[in-house]
This record gives sequence, structure tokens and C-alpha cells, in this order.
Amino acid sequence: MNKSTIEQLDIIKRGSHELLVEKELESKLNKGHPLRIKAGFDPTAPDLHLGHAVLLNKMRQLQDMGHHVLFLIGDFTGMIGDPSGKNSTRPPLTREQVAENAKSYTDQVFRILKQEQTEVVFNSIWMDKMNAADLIKLAATHTVARMLERDDFDKRYRNNQAIAIHEFIYPLIQGYDSVALKADIELGGTDQKFNLLMGRELQKHFGQSPQCILTMPLLEGLDGINKMSKSLNNYVGITESPKDIFGKLMSVSDELMWRYIELLSFESSATIQQWRRAVEEGRNPREIKVKFAQEMVARFHSARDAEMALTDFEARFKQGALPDDIPETIVQAQENTLPLTQLLKLTGLTTSTSEAMRLIKQGGIKLDNKKVEDKTLQISQGKTVIIQVGKRKFAKVTITK
Amino acid sequence: MNKSTIEQLDIIKRGSHELLVEKELESKLNKGHPLRIKAGFDPTAPDLHLGHAVLLNKMRQLQDMGHHVLFLIGDFTGMIGDPSGKNSTRPPLTREQVAENAKSYTDQVFRILKQEQTEVVFNSIWMDKMNAADLIKLAATHTVARMLERDDFDKRYRNNQAIAIHEFIYPLIQGYDSVALKADIELGGTDQKFNLLMGRELQKHFGQSPQCILTMPLLEGLDGINKMSKSLNNYVGITESPKDIFGKLMSVSDELMWRYIELLSFESSATIQQWRRAVEEGRNPREIKVKFAQEMVARFHSARDAEMALTDFEARFKQGALPDDIPETIVQAQENTLPLTQLLKLTGLTTSTSEAMRLIKQGGIKLDNKKVEDKTLQISQGKTVIIQVGKRKFAKVTITK
Repeated sequence: MNKSTIEQLDIIKRGSHELLVEKELESKLNKGHPLRIKAGFDPTAPDLHLGHAVLLNKMRQLQDMGHHVLFLIGDFTGMIGDPSGKNSTRPPLTREQVAENAKSYTDQVFRILKQEQTEVVFNSIWMDKMNAADLIKLAATHTVARMLERDDFDKRYRNNQAIAIHEFIYPLIQGYDSVALKADIELGGTDQKFNLLMGRELQKHFGQSPQCILTMPLLEGLDGINKMSKSLNNYVGITESPKDIFGKLMSVSDELMWRYIELLSFESSATIQQWRRAVEEGRNPREIKVKFAQEMVARFHSARDAEMALTDFEARFKQGALPDDIPETIVQAQENTLPLTQLLKLTGLTTSTSEAMRLIKQGGIKLDNKKVEDKTLQISQGKTVIIQVGKRKFAKVTITK
Repeated sequence: MNKSTIEQLDIIKRGSHELLVEKELESKLNKGHPLRIKAGFDPTAPDLHLGHAVLLNKMRQLQDMGHHVLFLIGDFTGMIGDPSGKNSTRPPLTREQVAENAKSYTDQVFRILKQEQTEVVFNSIWMDKMNAADLIKLAATHTVARMLERDDFDKRYRNNQAIAIHEFIYPLIQGYDSVALKADIELGGTDQKFNLLMGRELQKHFGQSPQCILTMPLLEGLDGINKMSKSLNNYVGITESPKDIFGKLMSVSDELMWRYIELLSFESSATIQQWRRAVEEGRNPREIKVKFAQEMVARFHSARDAEMALTDFEARFKQGALPDDIPETIVQAQENTLPLTQLLKLTGLTTSTSEAMRLIKQGGIKLDNKKVEDKTLQISQGKTVIIQVGKRKFAKVTITK
């Protein structure tokens, strides 16, 4: 480790939401040993996006300072499934599925983490050995009132929504994982603070030096409003193609761009300050967005991919050239001609004919690179046309009988 | 089984507080098989008294109808102790202590239960095999809100008194015992209703026909106010001497006598009704009390002991004769004489000299069978005296140098 404790603390705290307890972390760092960094992940099929990258980046920064990452997959509870049987979409995972999902995780996270400083661990290793009596002793360490302090439990209890008793046990297991791993610090989203504190408390109970906790902000999705998530389709997946990552990041608002940069860029604080000043003084924020989008593509793919994504992006949007990989579709028409609005819907470029009409009215549809102005435009059977919706959606469509 | 279902139901319900669900019990009885009767007991050192006898009597009545008793000792949780560590007076029991206590239980309960129709079972048999995952599944069957419905939990929660999470698990284990035992009916005090219902619910969850539950009233102690308990010293232990059982029962109020008779006597309802009428018409209730006290001594000892206890009692209290087994004590005096009040305290006949003075004032102390009236009475060194406190406490004391 080359960096001083003060330098390390500075990097650790950057972009974080909360560090508890800084003095304790300082004294852990002062010892000069590599710290054991814990972060827990769901054992269900992973599809990591920039929201996860906020956490993984912080872990990578810690690795760069010489620390050791314990990438914990919570497979024990995953293999139990939802024992209350209320959530049929969460069937118990088999050991094979866990192994598959773990493989998928590592395929993704090693785009960010250093493999040689990462240990992938499964809590079934210690939890499978735990018997009912041990679990009862674990449950005895905390009170019902303490559990009901957790925001979501409190809310559900006050709204008369059922909380099954085992749900009070899960945070204890998560906390016990810190004991089993002898974690020095645990990382998680701000919504995980309660569970991370359980780890601290249980380590104290078991006579260990309690872990520090570091919470990271939750990243907003491309809409700038909701938390980034796959289900809201407002995400940038870390395994998406260079072109998609680049394109999606170029599409965010200038305001959101700064938020993403703050949480995801590895550029120094000084550089980012300089960028902000430049934009305030009139520089086009688009130029900063390009730098950031390139940094992300380079991180998840390669520097070369980042260059190619930029070239491609510029070709498409600056010079209005068509991309060279437009998907081709064949659409069958019952009549001699097909309304363009219906064609847009049939090819999935719009979700409805009314959306198609609206987009035409707004000037958002091009046919063979010419803006469409006629909402009733018909395309004849036998023709092949290139349709463009907005800046980035293309389709090459052939109309057959 | 000789008795009809209706006759059986009548006996089962007699003196009970609540039977749930009568229709279900009826159909179980109609099948004509011996039913599996569950009752759970604490694994700590037992000292059974008439309060327990209310329950054991009911079990005995069921045995007399041909049913099978599962006398469950909850040793699993006993061997965990108090895992929250708050109750230092409840250390974990060892397997040896459990075996000893079980032996002590059977020494006592077979004064009431039929040994050949009783199976003593320990829940550690199935609970020791249960792993953490199974216990989590068990915990998932009930909600936090449901547990907080239990009177004592509700009260503690509302008064901000700590409830450790494992306390929510214990009723589930008690309920699971019914599953493991395939109980047809479970007996308990009225304060156990919630826990008995857990058994019903868990049996349903595990696909079994749910047990019926039969709650028995809690017996008041000799004071007629508090629940009978050893710690309040208002109890009649079932292993006490014939003389003590007889004497204590003769000391209860006439009103409490009827309550005891209702809950403990095996006399028919018709006989008891007849007694009540007789007393209303002027018969001395003391005669009924004698009958009942004899019945109890006969049950816990023998008919002969009951006769002897009566003879002895009459000799002592009717004719004022001294009992022939007065404990002898030697007390050393520093002075030539010792005040009687101090002697009473030294021999433990009173707890203090002021209590001794009060008793003398009330005319409750006899010296050599003569009532003491002088609070300052001194007894000389070298003398041997017989002291009587109230009706039943005696000591033969020799004063030495």
C-alpha cells in the first residue's frame, strides 16, 4: 500500500453517502494490513448495470489501494426461496443455478474488479451448518422493536401489511455473514444501512472488532427520476454493447450527466471541477458527455471500443449517415399498400399507431432518410424502406404479399 | 372404550374453560381410536402442586376413557437456556439435568396418571435434528402481527418492554411439537391458549388434521387471590406429606373450597350438587372440606394415609393434643435467660422479633400448651420447652449455654 491513511480515507469517502465510523476505519487503515471488504449480492440471475457499478467502482478503488474484496453471494436464503409461498416468482434456487449465476456474476464484475484481489464467497458454506438452536441464539441478540425500526418494516407494520417472522431473521443472517467473514468494512446502497449495522452489532456480540460501514448513493436511471433498475428499463447494463452504452449515456440530460460523473467516473475531483468550470464558461456539455461515455465504454469493454463507439456515434448523429447494422424485417401486407403508422407498430418501432401518428406530427420519423410529414402515408407491397425513429432506432423493412 | 362420545365430551368439558372445536373432537371420538393427548411441561426442576393437578386430572380422566397421554418435556429450549442472557437464573440445562428432572416429573405425575397409558417424550428428539433452514421455513408460517396478538407480547410491546426475536420462535416450536407428535388434542392452562392454537395452525400447514384444544382454568392459591405457585408459597404440593396436604386444605375458606372441589374432585357433579344443597340447608362446610381433603390425600398418597391424616388432624385441632413428631432444636443463649420473642426468631418459627411480638399480642403463641400473654417473657438456660405458633407450627427447643 503506497497511499497514506489520509489519502485512502479521502478516496474511500469520495462519492459515498455515509461512512461509519471514520475514526475506526482510520485506525484499521493505520495498521497497514489489507482490509477485508465485504459486499453482499443477491443470488438470483444477475444483470448488472451502472447502479451496481457505483458500488463495484468503490470496491475497485479499495482494491487499487491494496485491499481484499469478499464478494458474497447470499445463496443460503436463495436456496430457501420464499418460504411464505406468497411470491411464486421467487422459487428456491438449486445449487446448480447458484453456480451458474455466480459464473454470470464473475463474468460481469471482473470488468471492474481485480480478479486476484477478489474472493467469491457463498454464505451457504456456514449457514448450511447452522442448526435451529444456533439460529435461535442469533435471533435472541435483537429485539422485535429494533427490527421494526427498519424503514420498510415500520411502514409495512403501520400499514397492516404482513411481515412474516422469518423476514426478521434475514437481516440477522446478513449480519452474521460479517462475523463468518471477519469483515473490516461492508459496502452497500443507502437502502442497506440497517442491514449493514446488523453486521456491526453481531460482530461486537461475537467478540470481534466491528466492521465499518460505507453506504453509496442509489443511482438514478436514464429518466433522471427513478432508481436505475432493469424492470423500469431506465438502465445501462455493464455488458451492453459499446455502441449502446455510448448512445444511452449521450442521451442523458446535462444535469444527470454530472451526477453520473460524480458517482461513476474515476477522473480526479480536480479534473471534474475543471470540467464544471469550463461548462459554466460556455463549453458545450456534450463534449464532457463524450469523455464520460468513452470512460465507461473503456471500463466495461476497452479503450479501442470506446474510440469506435465515438466514431460510430459521430457518423450517425453528426453527419446523419445511416449505421451499417440496421436490423432487417419482413412484413406481410394484406392490401396493396400498408399505412406507415401500422408498419411502425408492426415492426415494434412504436408501441401503437397513435404513438406513430404523434411522432410523425413531431417530425420524429424518417423514411429513407427523409422526414415524414404525412400521417396517412402508405407504403406499397414489394418495397423495401429504411425507417428511422428518433435519433437511434432504425429498421430496414420489406413489405411482402 | 366403554363410554359414548356424548358421555366422553361431557366428562372432557367438565371444569374446563374452553374446548375448541367441539365438533372436531366429536368426530375424532366417533372414530373409536384412542386419541393422542398432548400436554407440554417445562423441563426445569418440577415441583408439582394442585395447580398442575387440574391439568393432570383431566389427562387422567381421558386415560380412564382409554386415551393415550403424550407427556411432553420441552427440553430443547431448556437446553438453550435464555439466549438473550438477561435471565441469569435460567442457565442452560445439561442433558443429565433434563433426565433427572424427567425422573422427578414421573415420580410425581404417576400419582395421578396411568403409567401404561403415558408416553414421556422430549422435543429435543426432533428439534435437535432441525437445521436453520427448516426453522426459517417454520418462522415463515406466521406473521409478526399475529405474534403480537398474544396478550403478553402485545402488552410488552405497547409498554416498550423488549421482546427478543427468538421469543417469537418459541411458540412456533411448541406448535411444531404437535406436528411431530400428531396430537389429536392438546391441554393447557387458559394462559396457554395462543400457544395451543399455534399447534392447530402448524398441523394444518403440514397437512395434518388440526388438534383440538382444551384449556383448563388456573387454580387460585391458598390465599384465594393469586394463581397457585411455589414462589408465592400459596400452594399445596402433590408430594407433600398427607398431614400437610390435609392441613392446608382444611385451612382454605369455604368459598375457595367449592372452587377446589369443582376443579380437582373426581366426585360426580350430582354428588357435588348434593353437598352444596346440604351446606345451604345448614350442614357445616367443614364436613365437606374433610371429605375433599381426604380425597386429595388418597389420590396423592393412599386411602389409609387419608384416614390417618384425618385422625391426626382431629387429634391436633379438635382435642388440642400435640402432634408426636415435633422437630427438636437446640439454641445457645449468651445470657442466663433468652427472651421468647428472640427464641421464636432464632428457631425460624417467626421471621422477626416484631412478628413474634405481634403474634403474642394476637394470642397466637403457646408455650407448653399454654397461651403466652407476656411479650417480655424470658426462658431460662437449661430449659426445654414446646412452642406452638398458630395451629400447625411446633418446635421443641432446648436452651443451652
